[in-house]
Amino acid sequence: MSEPGAAGPSPAAIQVSRIMRPDDANIAGNVHGGTILKMIEEAGAIISTRHCNSQAGEPCVAALARVERTDFLSPVCIGEVANVSAEITYTSRHSVEVQVNVMSENILTGAKKVTNKATLWYVPLSLKNVNKVVEVPPIQYARKEQEDEGKKRYEEQKLDRLETKQRNGDVILPVINPEPHTVGYSQSSLIHLVGPSDCTLLGFVHGGVTMKLMDEVAGIVAARHCKTNIVTASVDAINFHEKIKKGCVITVSGRMTFTSNKSMEIEVFVDADPFVDEPRERYRAVSAFFTYVSLSKEGKPLPVPQLLTETEDEKRRFEEGKGRYLQTKAKRQAQMQQQAAQQ
Amino acid sequence: MSEPGAAGPSPAAIQVSRIMRPDDANIAGNVHGGTILKMIEEAGAIISTRHCNSQAGEPCVAALARVERTDFLSPVCIGEVANVSAEITYTSRHSVEVQVNVMSENILTGAKKVTNKATLWYVPLSLKNVNKVVEVPPIQYARKEQEDEGKKRYEEQKLDRLETKQRNGDVILPVINPEPHTVGYSQSSLIHLVGPSDCTLLGFVHGGVTMKLMDEVAGIVAARHCKTNIVTASVDAINFHEKIKKGCVITVSGRMTFTSNKSMEIEVFVDADPFVDEPRERYRAVSAFFTYVSLSKEGKPLPVPQLLTETEDEKRRFEEGKGRYLQTKAKRQAQMQQQAAQQ
Amino acid sequence: MSEPGAAGPSPAAIQVSRIMRPDDANIAGNVHGGTILKMIEEAGAIISTRHCNSQAGEPCVAALARVERTDFLSPVCIGEVANVSAEITYTSRHSVEVQVNVMSENILTGAKKVTNKATLWYVPLSLKNVNKVVEVPPIQYARKEQEDEGKKRYEEQKLDRLETKQRNGDVILPVINPEPHTVGYSQSSLIHLVGPSDCTLLGFVHGGVTMKLMDEVAGIVAARHCKTNIVTASVDAINFHEKIKKGCVITVSGRMTFTSNKSMEIEVFVDADPFVDEPRERYRAVSAFFTYVSLSKEGKPLPVPQLLTETEDEKRRFEEGKGRYLQTKAKRQAQMQQQAAQQ
Repeated sequence: MSEPGAAGPSPAAIQVSRIMRPDDANIAGNVHGGTILKMIEEAGAIISTRHCNSQAGEPCVAALARVERTDFLSPVCIGEVANVSAEITYTSRHSVEVQVNVMSENILTGAKKVTNKATLWYVPLSLKNVNKVVEVPPIQYARKEQEDEGKKRYEEQKLDRLETKQRNGDVILPVINPEPHTVGYSQSSLIHLVGPSDCTLLGFVHGGVTMKLMDEVAGIVAARHCKTNIVTASVDAINFHEKIKKGCVITVSGRMTFTSNKSMEIEVFVDADPFVDEPRERYRAVSAFFTYVSLSKEGKPLPVPQLLTETEDEKRRFEEGKGRYLQTKAKRQAQMQQQAAQQ
Repeated sequence: MSEPGAAGPSPAAIQVSRIMRPDDANIAGNVHGGTILKMIEEAGAIISTRHCNSQAGEPCVAALARVERTDFLSPVCIGEVANVSAEITYTSRHSVEVQVNVMSENILTGAKKVTNKATLWYVPLSLKNVNKVVEVPPIQYARKEQEDEGKKRYEEQKLDRLETKQRNGDVILPVINPEPHTVGYSQSSLIHLVGPSDCTLLGFVHGGVTMKLMDEVAGIVAARHCKTNIVTASVDAINFHEKIKKGCVITVSGRMTFTSNKSMEIEVFVDADPFVDEPRERYRAVSAFFTYVSLSKEGKPLPVPQLLTETEDEKRRFEEGKGRYLQTKAKRQAQMQQQAAQQ
Repeated sequence: MSEPGAAGPSPAAIQVSRIMRPDDANIAGNVHGGTILKMIEEAGAIISTRHCNSQAGEPCVAALARVERTDFLSPVCIGEVANVSAEITYTSRHSVEVQVNVMSENILTGAKKVTNKATLWYVPLSLKNVNKVVEVPPIQYARKEQEDEGKKRYEEQKLDRLETKQRNGDVILPVINPEPHTVGYSQSSLIHLVGPSDCTLLGFVHGGVTMKLMDEVAGIVAARHCKTNIVTASVDAINFHEKIKKGCVITVSGRMTFTSNKSMEIEVFVDADPFVDEPRERYRAVSAFFTYVSLSKEGKPLPVPQLLTETEDEKRRFEEGKGRYLQTKAKRQAQMQQQAAQQ
């Protein structure tokens, strides 16, 4: 919990534990990635809101701006306890970086496993004027290098957020009588009316609620494609460009973009429809890539049927997905070599 | 509660009370019709399951087969208590009729209002063999006429169930760039992965869970059409032809079929996709008509924009909807005259 | 958190934090006592199950046996964070005492308040044979006195549990057209079908789920009596005599027993109906006394209308309630004098 962090075990660190229930899991008993993402985000929202209000100043609520790429290292099961701990690892003038770690604990055997390490970026919005970003009190660093590394992470994510702001206009069009294993066959969407318990004090949807719905749709796309037990393997960086207000209807749509031998990549869009009290048009609020694997009854990875691409756009997206897949694979191998070299 | 019923205050009568919470309601504070339908069905399922297990015999669980047309007589608000009472009013060899009444109670002022009267039909399925219908213990009637009237209701609904079994094949096709107030503009659909808490002990979805999702989609269709605060006014008779198993993905789709000056009729379909462990194809599980009204901020009915029909099918469905509307109106007027004559 | 406790900051301590949502609260924004009780019990269940499995032996799940009298020291509001921390403070051969503290934190102002201190007793039941109580690994005490004090608390609660096992047979009968402020006027009941997410790994209801339903019914009784905003002030010791299995229907009934100038005492019963697959009769599973106060819009205590007792039983229960009220008052005064003397 103390890797790239603030000085010592900060008093600001927070821990959340919860027993995983049947409703948190699929029928094979594996807890949905979305349940974990929601717990991670709640811990992040508490610690960053607390920090941003720790000095006299304008009361504010921290809003999720971005989640860095997150891997699901091992599945969590019903009856296990998910222990989520969060701490603040960097602050810029207007944003807070939170590092969250999730451990699953089998309280019967005592076995513990690291299941997730996530990095979230929050921006504090004024309670009185939701369009105003307030200043973040700086944290103390144990060593100068920690601040420098944090600054580097900050600059990188800022750049990435600007870039992905471009990609969006896309809409998912329905297909009549699609063939199995085509994109149209598995694409899915749901609508959700944003209720009071989905929202922060500012009246905007918690990032974790959005991520849970995204994982739900992506999981249905994956299951429709391979008709087996599927679990979330990773989520690419997610940027939250636009807030979503209470009373909106959100449409969450997913389509498969790429398959490797043992994994599937699904692109998910969230569109908001402020249909009751506002003249505003439907807008794209969030988009992201989720990766799933297919598991046998014994929990072993199964081969995934190849995605059949038909249109030019589908072929292009498949190639782009392949690029992301190979890049991630190369990064992981580099990390493993580095770790091996350090031992 | 004792209108068309069993002798005296039956020991089998049950009552369910619950405070309405923010998540049970829309942003105007009106409780969703679907929340009420789900409570009604839960009370019905409990009382009929209890009755069917009241004599030595095969353990069984009552499954919802049909809900008669239900009117929402007055809106319920957050903070009020919904009091749902249920009693068994007729039994055939293989089915149970349950009469449910809902009263809303403002516990601060003590004011009470009848909000719903519903009639539900249940069929007991063996706990060991879900395809076996077990025998229902007969109830005692205070007077012979009660039994005769019950038998008449039983025959009528049986006939109606057979008829509606035909209507289904229909699918809701998406429309690109639809104009406001057309059918394509407001049509909506959601998908839901059936989890453990959605299901009975037999592992099949509670009828009330299905009805709640249907009301959710129908409400979004209505709100998209008129962009105001809308509330459920009534639900036509719903037949549950096919069971839906845990682990299925269900697609709930709604489209507007008819508008009068002050109301909208929305047709809702539920399709089940038993996609993980079964070779079975997607099938139509339920369909129904919901009627909504649009309310001003003061709670007064507003005029509804007329539905613009484009295709032949849309025009035909509009005429059929008009037929149902006029028939209901005529029935209501006849009832009122009858009541006036009796006073 | 370290008052009567185990040596040092035990690794076994656990913390749970959660933002309070609109659904956790009444319409005045005060979080339900039941929400807090449920969080307390979840923390207790995690820490005691973890401890009881910490040595090689039969896998087991800790079941709630008893909650000591609990005071709600200050109300919690929507948007605040409830921080629940639990540690084990005593172990006997077959039971575990857990001390839980709840702090509410306004993350905007940083203000923290102690809201509850609760003591819970758990008994570990074998995962393979739910009727077998397994042995509890002993904890280490920092000082001999801690063990002695723990043993004293253990003996006291054991005696009390035996006593209350007697009181039960009572049933709440409905009253036709009751007068305001009589017992019959405010008495209430609800039924709940026990679903999978209500249960532990053993398939029995979590104590916290039961307590939340009890608080819901007691709150309706209190609101019906005084027609104002009411909040939970305290809960008397609750003994869980009998387990409740998944698939049962539970009936939770409440009736007012006593009013002082500023408080109301409500007796709550939980009856379980194992109605499907078991031949067993309905049985009394839990009973308890809840105390509520009535608050003005500014959060100040209001006078409570006096309870009108009619029958001999009601008068007797009123006197008994008065006895408990005076006893608690005397104890609190004694404590305050002791604290004053120590300063």
